[in-house]
Amino acid sequence: MNAVVSAPVFKGRLGIVAGRGSFPVLVAQAARDLAHNPYIFALKDEADQDWSDFDAANLGIGDLSAFMQIVRREGIGAIVMAGGISRRPGIGDIRPTWTALKSAPQALRALLSGGDDKILRAATEMLERHGVQVLGAHEIAPDLLGQCGPLGNRRPDQSDRADIAAATQAAIALGRLDIGQGAVAVGGRVIALEGLEGTDAMLARVAGLRADGRLRAKSRGVLVKLCKQGQELRADLPAIGPDTVRNAHTAGLSGIAIEAGRSLVLQRGEVIAEANRLGLFVTGLEVAAAEHAT
Amino acid sequence: MNAVVSAPVFKGRLGIVAGRGSFPVLVAQAARDLAHNPYIFALKDEADQDWSDFDAANLGIGDLSAFMQIVRREGIGAIVMAGGISRRPGIGDIRPTWTALKSAPQALRALLSGGDDKILRAATEMLERHGVQVLGAHEIAPDLLGQCGPLGNRRPDQSDRADIAAATQAAIALGRLDIGQGAVAVGGRVIALEGLEGTDAMLARVAGLRADGRLRAKSRGVLVKLCKQGQELRADLPAIGPDTVRNAHTAGLSGIAIEAGRSLVLQRGEVIAEANRLGLFVTGLEVAAAEHAT
Repeated sequence: MNAVVSAPVFKGRLGIVAGRGSFPVLVAQAARDLAHNPYIFALKDEADQDWSDFDAANLGIGDLSAFMQIVRREGIGAIVMAGGISRRPGIGDIRPTWTALKSAPQALRALLSGGDDKILRAATEMLERHGVQVLGAHEIAPDLLGQCGPLGNRRPDQSDRADIAAATQAAIALGRLDIGQGAVAVGGRVIALEGLEGTDAMLARVAGLRADGRLRAKSRGVLVKLCKQGQELRADLPAIGPDTVRNAHTAGLSGIAIEAGRSLVLQRGEVIAEANRLGLFVTGLEVAAAEHAT
Repeated sequence: MNAVVSAPVFKGRLGIVAGRGSFPVLVAQAARDLAHNPYIFALKDEADQDWSDFDAANLGIGDLSAFMQIVRREGIGAIVMAGGISRRPGIGDIRPTWTALKSAPQALRALLSGGDDKILRAATEMLERHGVQVLGAHEIAPDLLGQCGPLGNRRPDQSDRADIAAATQAAIALGRLDIGQGAVAVGGRVIALEGLEGTDAMLARVAGLRADGRLRAKSRGVLVKLCKQGQELRADLPAIGPDTVRNAHTAGLSGIAIEAGRSLVLQRGEVIAEANRLGLFVTGLEVAAAEHAT
């Protein structure tokens, strides 16, 4: 779908809720390139980058009260959520505001028992009730969006395309159940599905199956990552980076296919360099909305 | 569906193709209880039990030629396949017979690229073309079939039932894609899906997620194992045993639900004893054929 993205309009300062990994840093740098001065909410036990170059506060993941204090103090009008969260909040983590308490039952239920997408949707609705606009990271950093077609030198061959088709079908089924975004197919057959463990752990599992001789040496295979059906695009686009390429290589895969326009390629230059160095393809798929719906 | 199973009728000697684990031994013992004198085809690199008490040959997994020689020599009229196979045959493993060669293209394609169910269906068809009847292990050992309702002292509570519902929905989706049979749900949410790695490896993954603090301590969760839609019942019923109960306990789960009448409970006495000792439920579900079809 490769949507044309224009810079978002909002009043006040931009806030970035930063989880794990380098993605929030890329978004913060892109925000500076757009002449924003972002304020960073670095999530405790999650954010793992150096934020000393930015205005930043460390914040418990459920500490809505401290969060709203800073939002008001800094005049924050829009928020971007970026980076992974490995641990979901428990009831003891949540220090609600009064407004949150009023709408607590359904929001809390989603936070405590929903899939990722339900949680992120609940968080987004809660912020918007507080008058804070929620933007997608791709609105601040559109260059991070995956494009259609191959990124590096290699293209999927016929056998790769059969694997892409099988893994895509599985990833669509997974997404419909709000479970995960990724699947690995080898020799035309899906052999691994991503749950809570995440893409890198799934790739490590595939590497283990290969080391144990449970995948034939000649069949390489592909990783497919898709957006979930009806996914909250502002919160949780599937992402790949150079580590994904390296881990896919270790798993003996032939390449990676992601959804064009609805996924993120982090550190694109290094992704391309690693893909070319290791001989993997990385390609963007047009997955028709109709396919998600069937 | 708890079908009433009557002892199967066939001419000649019974053969058991034995893969990994104790399941083939249980089937062989049940066959003796029915006054059969089974001949054991112990698959090389797979069969791991002591077969010295039986007439047995070690056989490469693709060695149809040696297999058919024995079938003729021993006058074998029916075969049961029992036990896991961790490695799928590659093209180099297959030593075909002339009859197999005549029907090779589609059978080989299934063997080399299909899901488990396709492979087993192809193997079954190949044997039947050679005049060998293929029986389900449950026809020889009907006491191994899971029944409806709880096996031990515990029953699923309301929270367990929500997990069972979520994991059942996912297992049905998995089965429809011929991927796997198992899913784990915790707190109403599916967190792990079984691929090629198998149930025990999936449970180890859940134990790891819990050790890493990525599952809240209070949510226990359930394992659900179902038959795939249209599964070849003679070849590959989902099975649990005492190890499954112990591994589910290590993963912090509340219990296990399997499909009544279409799954195997190996070492039932020990399964019940372990479930009671560890405080887990083990229960048989009626999964309507209609649910598989939707």
